[in-house]
Amino acid sequence: MQIIRKSFYLTKNVEHKGQVDLVTETDKACEDLIFNHLRMLYPDHKFIGEETSAALGSTDDLTYDPTWIVDPLDGTTNFVHGFPFVCVSIGLTIGKIPTVGVVYNPIMNELFTAVRGKGAFLNGSPIKTSPQNELVKALMVTEVGTKRDKPTLDDTTNRINKLLFKIRSIRMCGSLALNMCGVACGRLDLCYEIGFGGPWDVAAGALILKEAGGFVFDPSGDAFDLMAQRMAGSNGHLKDQFIKALVDAS
Amino acid sequence: MQIIRKSFYLTKNVEHKGQVDLVTETDKACEDLIFNHLRMLYPDHKFIGEETSAALGSTDDLTYDPTWIVDPLDGTTNFVHGFPFVCVSIGLTIGKIPTVGVVYNPIMNELFTAVRGKGAFLNGSPIKTSPQNELVKALMVTEVGTKRDKPTLDDTTNRINKLLFKIRSIRMCGSLALNMCGVACGRLDLCYEIGFGGPWDVAAGALILKEAGGFVFDPSGDAFDLMAQRMAGSNGHLKDQFIKALVDAS
Repeated sequence: MQIIRKSFYLTKNVEHKGQVDLVTETDKACEDLIFNHLRMLYPDHKFIGEETSAALGSTDDLTYDPTWIVDPLDGTTNFVHGFPFVCVSIGLTIGKIPTVGVVYNPIMNELFTAVRGKGAFLNGSPIKTSPQNELVKALMVTEVGTKRDKPTLDDTTNRINKLLFKIRSIRMCGSLALNMCGVACGRLDLCYEIGFGGPWDVAAGALILKEAGGFVFDPSGDAFDLMAQRMAGSNGHLKDQFIKALVDAS
Repeated sequence: MQIIRKSFYLTKNVEHKGQVDLVTETDKACEDLIFNHLRMLYPDHKFIGEETSAALGSTDDLTYDPTWIVDPLDGTTNFVHGFPFVCVSIGLTIGKIPTVGVVYNPIMNELFTAVRGKGAFLNGSPIKTSPQNELVKALMVTEVGTKRDKPTLDDTTNRINKLLFKIRSIRMCGSLALNMCGVACGRLDLCYEIGFGGPWDVAAGALILKEAGGFVFDPSGDAFDLMAQRMAGSNGHLKDQFIKALVDAS
């Protein structure tokens, strides 16, 4: 992850065209590094990656085979700006079930990890979600996404408007994987995002949040679907209140 | 600042009533510590502090005397939640002009400093604002404030909606002083907030941002008024474009 850290400090000093190249290069270099290493160890496993899928023009379907789902650089806008919420996200599904999750922020040196049924950890220490059980005191994190058409933006800000009457406040930090980890370690109480990039943004974070005692679900209240580009998460207490607020706000 | 760091890690483990007490205690203890120290060094100077002013029920008027303007704990909601954007903000005005600014985040160990005419620094190294000169690529930070009446909230989210058509994306991190420092060191390009607590939130940050090559102004485009609870800031290139966008969005 030396690649990310080095490019992070380089990227602010090059002009825009150079930045785009540097980001793409960093993204691709990290994905190649991770996939090559995993392929060597697990030649029969499958792989879904943001860069690979972007190159192919589609997201591979998730199968029951062991599948590594990787975002080599989550928080690209932050990365370009030198804002320190960037991470590598690596998830493993077996039989379509998230089984291993790793999210690493090399700038803040925070490593979130989880194995199904074994709890969640930050730099090796166990983490758990917050004890907050009142929606009105909850701190929620979300993002406005990258789409800038009027219907999507109006939906986004109308939803935020309605939610703000019911919660304490809102944060936007620019990395969905780190947002989920923020709820997992109790710094935040709630998170949601609709219309994000793909399963690589959530495969690791969803497991880490669940293993920390939280809940991961569809913003409608339905079961979470890793491939649906819709997610909501809560600590161990606020799931039902949050679903009601999300449904009322949509 | 050991007090803040210690309480930061304590606060997550106590129930809500205890949290409120701990925050108030930390706030008051820090303000007393800072004011007592400065009074000993400068017995003739004046002092404006969030805790002191809150206790008196009003903000003291700013005079031409040397005046220390202190927020002992900016980012209270973050502090309660253990979210790492919290800081101490200390500004000095002489003849109503911001002359010294210090913003310290003890959790991330980042110390922003500026003296009028002498540049701005992060942990002793010079900082400058970003080179971004296209509004559509700019990263903007703001906050939704604490008021939850419908007219204020509608204004807040309508403004965000309109701005989102013109900028790259938005961040909300929960500390205005650190938001201004984020623009100062080029991690963010633009910031604004309307209806924040008082001059203690901006006295230090405004000087740090200016000394880093940025601009600080009223969201209407008028001159910045330290006592007005309204501020906008930009890097060295985007001021005029940002004012136009803010005016169009209001």
